Amino acid sequence: MIWEQRIVSLRGRPRGFHLVTDEIVGQTPELRRVRVGIAHFFIRHTSASLTLNENADPDVRADLETWWRRAAPDNAPYFRHTLEGADDMPAHIKAATVGAGLTVPITDGALNLGTWQGIYLGEHRARGGGRQIVVTIFGEE
Amino acid sequence: MIWEQRIVSLRGRPRGFHLVTDEIVGQTPELRRVRVGIAHFFIRHTSASLTLNENADPDVRADLETWWRRAAPDNAPYFRHTLEGADDMPAHIKAATVGAGLTVPITDGALNLGTWQGIYLGEHRARGGGRQIVVTIFGEE
Amino acid sequence: MIWEQRIVSLRGRPRGFHLVTDEIVGQTPELRRVRVGIAHFFIRHTSASLTLNENADPDVRADLETWWRRAAPDNAPYFRHTLEGADDMPAHIKAATVGAGLTVPITDGALNLGTWQGIYLGEHRARGGGRQIVVTIFGEE
Repeated sequence: MIWEQRIVSLRGRPRGFHLVTDEIVGQTPELRRVRVGIAHFFIRHTSASLTLNENADPDVRADLETWWRRAAPDNAPYFRHTLEGADDMPAHIKAATVGAGLTVPITDGALNLGTWQGIYLGEHRARGGGRQIVVTIFGEE
Repeated sequence: MIWEQRIVSLRGRPRGFHLVTDEIVGQTPELRRVRVGIAHFFIRHTSASLTLNENADPDVRADLETWWRRAAPDNAPYFRHTLEGADDMPAHIKAATVGAGLTVPITDGALNLGTWQGIYLGEHRARGGGRQIVVTIFGEE
Repeated sequence: MIWEQRIVSLRGRPRGFHLVTDEIVGQTPELRRVRVGIAHFFIRHTSASLTLNENADPDVRADLETWWRRAAPDNAPYFRHTLEGADDMPAHIKAATVGAGLTVPITDGALNLGTWQGIYLGEHRARGGGRQIVVTIFGEE
């Protein structure tokens, strides 16, 4: 049984959803050693999220961002948590709802994603900066 | 320690939320061998989702679908990803927000669900067809 | 390899989001024995949820609750599942969307949360009462 854990650092990105599969997988060579197992990705932040969706048309990421900006708008008059900026409370709502973690099966040394699935970073702050992900990989060799 | 992984195929269903606990559990006899462990269910698609909710009144599934159809409407004028059909971008939003994976504890050879909990497939396309789920089961015998 | 599983009981709380990190961690001393591993928290209910978000300003929890109350309002005229109370169907929507489970990495005997991350219980019923969480801890000593 293999247990590996590491911090993967993602470079800062603009507000929106971003495809980060290659950036994460490229930093986790341990995946190749696992025949059957699990990869767990955990973002150590409260205003960014991780999810999975289409890895092809970038309009999907743009539309997902547009939808969320309308669903949880900046400057909603009922927000009380406003001191950290107009984008902060919407960022918390998105992070709490979309989620901070992803659990993905590993099969034969690679993430067992569907053909069209990629890992999305949801960067919900205007200036979120770099983000840290704890990657835990475990399974059978 | 047990590690088992298999693909479970779900038959095609209409757009909406569907209770699929029995269809999934019936295809994963390995559950019975695990005394303490985890079952991970992962849908390899970007326009369908997995979640947990009430296994009794089917109106709960219908109302959840109604709510999501209003929250992420077909033909929203701000969508740019429209070539794959009016239901496609809403499907991506639902899949990215509800989630593609479920992690459930196993206790004494069965999923340790609450009395009222069942596994929901969110089928977010009008003609999604069959769906594939990677089931990974691991734990102590 | 360690496998530990227990039920953690959370005392009843009012409708809203509540910070429960200490109440959960205080009931799971097994965490300290794990050098590298995973903690899985699973709420065995369909009208309450678990998520992660800011552990500092309580206004974040209040605003998250306000946002969800507007997004999934009591007494929406299109709900059919109404017999269990005006708060019941909104509770199912929130539970199904926010999620019933959390998977958190363990590093050196503690949850590897970010500085500002805490575990939120989403209590979505007016009188939800106590809630049960199955905690599964596994990893390397």
